[in-house]
Amino acid sequence: LQFRDGARAVHTIDLNCDMGESFGPYRIGADADVVPFITSANLGCGFHGGDPRVMRESVALCKAHGVAIGAHPGFPDRLGFGRRTLGVTPEEVRDMVTYQVGALTAFAEVAGVKLRHVKPHGALYMMALEDDALASAIAESVAALDRRLAIFTTAGTAMHRAASHAGLRAVSEFFADRPMTSSGWRMFGWKLEEVGASVEAIAQRATRAVTEGKVRTLEGDDRAVEVETICVHSDTPGAAEIVRAVRTALETAGVRVGSPPIQT
Amino acid sequence: LQFRDGARAVHTIDLNCDMGESFGPYRIGADADVVPFITSANLGCGFHGGDPRVMRESVALCKAHGVAIGAHPGFPDRLGFGRRTLGVTPEEVRDMVTYQVGALTAFAEVAGVKLRHVKPHGALYMMALEDDALASAIAESVAALDRRLAIFTTAGTAMHRAASHAGLRAVSEFFADRPMTSSGWRMFGWKLEEVGASVEAIAQRATRAVTEGKVRTLEGDDRAVEVETICVHSDTPGAAEIVRAVRTALETAGVRVGSPPIQT
Amino acid sequence: LQFRDGARAVHTIDLNCDMGESFGPYRIGADADVVPFITSANLGCGFHGGDPRVMRESVALCKAHGVAIGAHPGFPDRLGFGRRTLGVTPEEVRDMVTYQVGALTAFAEVAGVKLRHVKPHGALYMMALEDDALASAIAESVAALDRRLAIFTTAGTAMHRAASHAGLRAVSEFFADRPMTSSGWRMFGWKLEEVGASVEAIAQRATRAVTEGKVRTLEGDDRAVEVETICVHSDTPGAAEIVRAVRTALETAGVRVGSPPIQT
Amino acid sequence: LQFRDGARAVHTIDLNCDMGESFGPYRIGADADVVPFITSANLGCGFHGGDPRVMRESVALCKAHGVAIGAHPGFPDRLGFGRRTLGVTPEEVRDMVTYQVGALTAFAEVAGVKLRHVKPHGALYMMALEDDALASAIAESVAALDRRLAIFTTAGTAMHRAASHAGLRAVSEFFADRPMTSSGWRMFGWKLEEVGASVEAIAQRATRAVTEGKVRTLEGDDRAVEVETICVHSDTPGAAEIVRAVRTALETAGVRVGSPPIQT
Repeated sequence: LQFRDGARAVHTIDLNCDMGESFGPYRIGADADVVPFITSANLGCGFHGGDPRVMRESVALCKAHGVAIGAHPGFPDRLGFGRRTLGVTPEEVRDMVTYQVGALTAFAEVAGVKLRHVKPHGALYMMALEDDALASAIAESVAALDRRLAIFTTAGTAMHRAASHAGLRAVSEFFADRPMTSSGWRMFGWKLEEVGASVEAIAQRATRAVTEGKVRTLEGDDRAVEVETICVHSDTPGAAEIVRAVRTALETAGVRVGSPPIQT
Repeated sequence: LQFRDGARAVHTIDLNCDMGESFGPYRIGADADVVPFITSANLGCGFHGGDPRVMRESVALCKAHGVAIGAHPGFPDRLGFGRRTLGVTPEEVRDMVTYQVGALTAFAEVAGVKLRHVKPHGALYMMALEDDALASAIAESVAALDRRLAIFTTAGTAMHRAASHAGLRAVSEFFADRPMTSSGWRMFGWKLEEVGASVEAIAQRATRAVTEGKVRTLEGDDRAVEVETICVHSDTPGAAEIVRAVRTALETAGVRVGSPPIQT
Repeated sequence: LQFRDGARAVHTIDLNCDMGESFGPYRIGADADVVPFITSANLGCGFHGGDPRVMRESVALCKAHGVAIGAHPGFPDRLGFGRRTLGVTPEEVRDMVTYQVGALTAFAEVAGVKLRHVKPHGALYMMALEDDALASAIAESVAALDRRLAIFTTAGTAMHRAASHAGLRAVSEFFADRPMTSSGWRMFGWKLEEVGASVEAIAQRATRAVTEGKVRTLEGDDRAVEVETICVHSDTPGAAEIVRAVRTALETAGVRVGSPPIQT
Repeated sequence: LQFRDGARAVHTIDLNCDMGESFGPYRIGADADVVPFITSANLGCGFHGGDPRVMRESVALCKAHGVAIGAHPGFPDRLGFGRRTLGVTPEEVRDMVTYQVGALTAFAEVAGVKLRHVKPHGALYMMALEDDALASAIAESVAALDRRLAIFTTAGTAMHRAASHAGLRAVSEFFADRPMTSSGWRMFGWKLEEVGASVEAIAQRATRAVTEGKVRTLEGDDRAVEVETICVHSDTPGAAEIVRAVRTALETAGVRVGSPPIQT
C-alpha cells in the first residue's frame, strides 16, 4: 500500500474526513461539500459530536456518494468536543467504544451499508497513540464487534500496534491539514499557514507524503511518514477546497484514490 | 399464549423487569436480586438510565441467569428519568430508538447473546400507547434493525397495533406493581398498597390476570386484560420479593414461566 | 410606554435579541453583528444553549455596547434547543429558573453589571403564555431573587399576569421576525417571507406595531398588539440587517429606542 | 485556629461534609443523617452531582440545622462523578467555578442564607493542589464573586497559596475518612479499614490530628498536618456514625466545634 519505492507504483490511497459532528441546532463542518471528494468518512457517534439524526443523515450522505463509513468514537465531553484529555480507565474506554460503534452500526444497518472502520476522535486518538492499555482497549472492543473493521491511526504508535495485535488492519494516517513537528503532529493550537502557504502547497505536501514518504516539519527537517489514508477535518477552514486539491494532486501524480480493501 | 379458557391450559408466561438503569456513581434498582426470578430483562440504553459500563454488566448478569435481553430505550432526559413527556417528532423517536437499540446490541454481540425484544421506557412507552405516529416510528425503527425483535407493550394500544403492522411480534404486558384504573394503568403517583395489601395479594392479582384475564380496578370493577408478559420494575420497593412471589404463584397455578419464543 | 394614540408621543421602545446560545465548539447566532443595534440581550444560561465561557463573553459583549443584560432560561434539552415541550412540574420550573438566573447573575456581577430582566426561552416561553402554574413558578422564582428584574413576555398572557401578580414589571414583547396568525404567534415552522417581503417591510411592520398598535395576521386581518420591546432572534437569517432596519425605521418614525427603565 | 501547642487551647474546628450530590431519580449520600453533626456543608452544583431541586432541598436542610453552606463545584462529568482528570485550561476552570457558585448562590439567596465557602470537588480539588494556574483560576473566580468566601483545601498546597494570594481565607482541611500516605492523601482506591479499625479509631485519629497536629501514614510514620476543618464524605459507608463519633471525640478532648468565622 505504500510508495516507498517511488511514484511509478499505482497504489491506492484513501482520503478520509472527520464529519457528522453537528448536534441538535448546531451545524459544524462542511460535510456536504467535502463528501464528493473523499473515500472514507469517520462519523461522530453522539458523545463528542453527532446525534441520532445527524448520524442517520451522515450515513445516507456517505452512501449516496459511495464513501466508506467508519465510526469516530470520542470522549463524553461535548462541551470540549472530545479534545480534552480525560482520566479514563481502559475498561471505560472499551465500553464507550462498544457503545458508540454499536450505535453507528445500527444506522448503517438500517441504511443497508456496512461499517468499514473505526477512528478514535480527538483526545482519545491522541492518548491511544502513546498509552498501550488504552490502545488495547480500543482494539479489543472493536475486534470483539467485528474483526473486519479497520483502525485508522498513525503508523508506529501504540494504537497501530494494538490494532495489529488484535488482528485488525491498521491503516496508517497522514493529516493533510495539520502541521508536523519534530515530536509529531501538532493537533491543537495550529494554524493552517503552518501546513502550507496555499491550498496547492497543502496538496503537494500530502502528495509528497504518499509518493516520497516524507513530510517537512515545522523545524525544517524531513520526517518519514507512512501513508495509507489522508485526513482532512471537515471543520478546517476551506476543507472542501483542500480535499479536492489533495485528490487532484494525488491523481495527477498517478496515485489511485479509493477506500481501503475490506479485510477477509 | 393466553388463558382466556381457564387455567388448565399450560401456556408460557414471561416475567420481565426494567433494569440496568444505574448511572455512573449512582445505583438504582435491585437488579441482582430480581434477575434470578425473571425471564426477560429490559435494559436501559444510556438515555434515561444506564451507561456503557452498566449495559455491559447488565448483559452479563442476564446471560449468567439465562434471562432474555431486551432494549429499554427512553427519552434523552436523565434528570427526569425519561418519565416526562417530550415534544418529539416521529422522526426523532425513530432515530433515538435506532441509536439506543444499536448501542445495546453491540454489548449483546460482544457477550455472545442475541437481543430479543424492545420495550419503550417511561413517557415514551405511555405516549406510544396512544399516538399512532410515535408508535409506528418505534415499530419501524425496530423492524428495520431486526424483524425477530418483539415489542413489549400493552394490548389494545397504538403501540401494539403498530408492532403487528410492522411485522413484529407484540407481547402483551401486565404490570404486577402498578394499579389499574377504569381509564388504564396508573404509572405515576401510585402507591404499592393500591396494588395489593401484601406481596401475596400482588402475586395472586397477577396470577388471576393470567388465568382469568381479569384485574380489579381501583374503582372496584373487573377489567379484561391480555397477558403474555408480567412486568415488575426493579426500583419498586421489594421488587425481588414481588417477582419471586409472582413466579411462585404462577407456577403453583400451573402456569409455565419462560421468555417468549423467538419469531421466525 | 405605548403608542395607542399615535406617533407624536415620544416613548421608548426596547429592542431585544435572544443570543449567547453558542456551545463549546458550536457557534450559533450573529451576536456580534446584532449587538450594536439592540438595547437588551437575553442570554442563554447553559441549559438549552450557552455555556460558561459563552456566558462570560456574551456579558462582556453586551457591557461593551451598553446593552441591558437579561437571562434567557430554557429547558435542559440542548439536543432540542429548548424548543420541545417537556412535561415539567411548576416546582421543577421554579428550580431550573433559579439555577439558570443565578448562574448568569454571577457572570454579570464579575463583570460589574446588573442583570435587568428575564425572558423564558422556547417551549418554556410558549408554555408559560397559557399555563398559569408554570407562569407563576417563573415569576415567583424571579421575584424571590430580585424584584427589580423585569419579565419579557407577550401581553395578555398567563406569564404577563403572573409577572404583575408577583410584583415584577412585565414588558410586552413583539416579534419582528415571526409571523402573526389569528391564533397568535407562529414560533415554529415559519418562513421569513411570511413576515415581510423585504427587510424594509419587516421593519415597517414592527414600526407600525409600535405606532399603531396593530399587526397584520397571515389571514389578512389586523390584530391589536401591545409593544414595549421588539425581539429579533440572533439566529434568524439576516438578523443584523433586520435589527438595524427596525431601529432605523423606529427612529425615523420618532420613536425613542432604549432599554426599559429599572423598577424601583 | 490550630492546636500545635496542645489541647489546652480551646479553639474552634469545623466539621464539613460533601453532600447534595444526588441527581434526578438517583439518591447518593446519607445527607439527612450527617447534617445534624456537621458545621459546614459543601453542596454539589449540578456539574458532577446535584441538580436544581437537590440544591434547593440541600440548602433548606442545611439552613434547618444551622449548617454553613458552601459550593462544591466540579468538572462537567456526571458519568465519572467529577473524579476523572480533565484537560481543562485555567480559563475554563474560572468560568465553570463562576457558573456553579453563581447557581448555588441563587438558591442560598432565595432561602435567605449566605454562601460561606467554596470547596472544589474531586479531580478539580486534587489538580488544584499542585497546579498553580488552576488554583489561581479557582481563587480568582471566587474572589471576583465575593471576597468573604473561604476556600476549603489542604494546607501547604497550590490551592492554599492561591486562595491567600487572592485575599481569601484558606481553611486547612483534614480528611477523617481517607488514608494518609507518605506522599499525601489517598483519595481514590482506598479502604475504610486503612483509616481505622473502628469508628472510634477513626474519631481518635481525627482528634489527634487536631490536638497534636499529626497523623499516622500507611507507611507507619507520623506526618504533620494543619487542621481547621475535618471532612467526612456523605457517601462514605457509615458516614453519619463517623461524623458523630468525630464530633464527640473532639468535644470530649475539649475542642470546640463550629463553622469558620466569616472574613471581614
